[in-house]
Amino acid sequence: MTAPTILQSPSNPTVKHLVRMRDNRARRKAGCVIVDGWRETAQALAAGLQLRSIYHTPLDPNESTDSSDYPWKTNVVAISGIAQKTTLVSEAILQRIGYGQSARGVVAEFDRPEKRLDQLSLDKDPFILVLDQMEKPGNVGAIFRSADAAGVSAVLLCGGGDPLHPNAIRSSSGGVFHVPWATGTMAEMSDWFGARSIRVLASRVESSTAIWETHWNGPTAIVMGNEADGLQDRWQNVAGQAVQGVCIPMAGQVDSLNVSVAAALLAFTAMAARKSHQA
Amino acid sequence: MTAPTILQSPSNPTVKHLVRMRDNRARRKAGCVIVDGWRETAQALAAGLQLRSIYHTPLDPNESTDSSDYPWKTNVVAISGIAQKTTLVSEAILQRIGYGQSARGVVAEFDRPEKRLDQLSLDKDPFILVLDQMEKPGNVGAIFRSADAAGVSAVLLCGGGDPLHPNAIRSSSGGVFHVPWATGTMAEMSDWFGARSIRVLASRVESSTAIWETHWNGPTAIVMGNEADGLQDRWQNVAGQAVQGVCIPMAGQVDSLNVSVAAALLAFTAMAARKSHQA
Repeated sequence: MTAPTILQSPSNPTVKHLVRMRDNRARRKAGCVIVDGWRETAQALAAGLQLRSIYHTPLDPNESTDSSDYPWKTNVVAISGIAQKTTLVSEAILQRIGYGQSARGVVAEFDRPEKRLDQLSLDKDPFILVLDQMEKPGNVGAIFRSADAAGVSAVLLCGGGDPLHPNAIRSSSGGVFHVPWATGTMAEMSDWFGARSIRVLASRVESSTAIWETHWNGPTAIVMGNEADGLQDRWQNVAGQAVQGVCIPMAGQVDSLNVSVAAALLAFTAMAARKSHQA
Repeated sequence: MTAPTILQSPSNPTVKHLVRMRDNRARRKAGCVIVDGWRETAQALAAGLQLRSIYHTPLDPNESTDSSDYPWKTNVVAISGIAQKTTLVSEAILQRIGYGQSARGVVAEFDRPEKRLDQLSLDKDPFILVLDQMEKPGNVGAIFRSADAAGVSAVLLCGGGDPLHPNAIRSSSGGVFHVPWATGTMAEMSDWFGARSIRVLASRVESSTAIWETHWNGPTAIVMGNEADGLQDRWQNVAGQAVQGVCIPMAGQVDSLNVSVAAALLAFTAMAARKSHQA
């Protein structure tokens, strides 16, 4: 039995390709998603993403099964069809191609899935969170984590924000692989909401209706803006209807909430109200 | 008129002292708080912290009044008694003594205020958030930001967590200077709650009572654990009474919420319920 080949040359074309894939634009052009970490790779596989190739350091047969990565690693390695896409790499190469501490032994490249609005299939009474011009991947990921926990039907991203950015994947705790999502323009979303009779609300600090004072029943979407600018005059009307504003009333001296905190308050308040209405 | 003296030597003892003060233990030993940024310095002054000394780059008389720092800077400079404690420093020295981008022109050193439980004066019907063994300063700060916005009466820190860590100050958006707080041991807090007939709840993922299904009226404290371990078997009893558990019900596949998101959900849900009960 020959020892397995371990990729260790930084000038290897595959290594150069993967280093290039840390760049947002290069990743988009190549139509790929880069996933760091065993847990996240297992979640991406479970979500049905198409694996292109996987790079990991040699497995340690004596590794403690107590390690938090162990069950995920075992899952990934057990999946048939992984073997021929696997390349063993040295620790130094992994550091080079991975995202700092997050890689934790593995980097995987997947096809970037299409996430168009018309592909989204939801139940008849959905609750949808719309993120308008959200820029920071860490915030987008944190919102998916909360959206998953709250049981939101889908997250729509309008005019920016990428749930498949490595930082978003990481901060989502796997939420980006669990919650259905799609991207689109405001016009596309307006038509889509109109065609499905989905009521649209908008989170606006200047609104006088508290999130506890509105009803959340029936097919509903709530739009929230980004941390820096809010929604301003966007989303005033959808499909010819005025969009109702709601706000999270603030008592103290801080002038804003963290955007992922605000999203969690909206999502959990809405889902709790819907549940109590059904009960 | 002579040109003002600008401190620019890295070997100056004051500069060395300030560099040392970036270390948590050194700061505690020196009994000081280091604040980065004009806005944060203005908030610390407004909160009554005792200024030891302030270091800033020379002010630009042509600076645009549109700058987000401008009103804060003007406030700080206008306060009498600041002048004799002020040292002008070069940009290079500020980079050395400040915390990266956060310094934004100024670093200030304050006396560290005592924050003992017996100094805390609250109204008759307080709502208190207790953070048990919370470690990460960024999370502590984020929780203060939400606690301020929710209108929480006070935050208590049991067994760790420092709201006056530079990262906590930064992530709190000034909340650490607005919300009353104190530190103490579990025994001290138990006695304190018992003496004041404050009802104590604990946030536990394994509890079957949802935060929407309990009442939040009357003097109430809610204890939450840290991100890694939760409360485990701590806070089972307070002053001879069993502590009621509450949970944030989770629908999705993620196994936990971000700790600052969970704190915000607890605080806003409780405050909204209390308000609607009073109405």
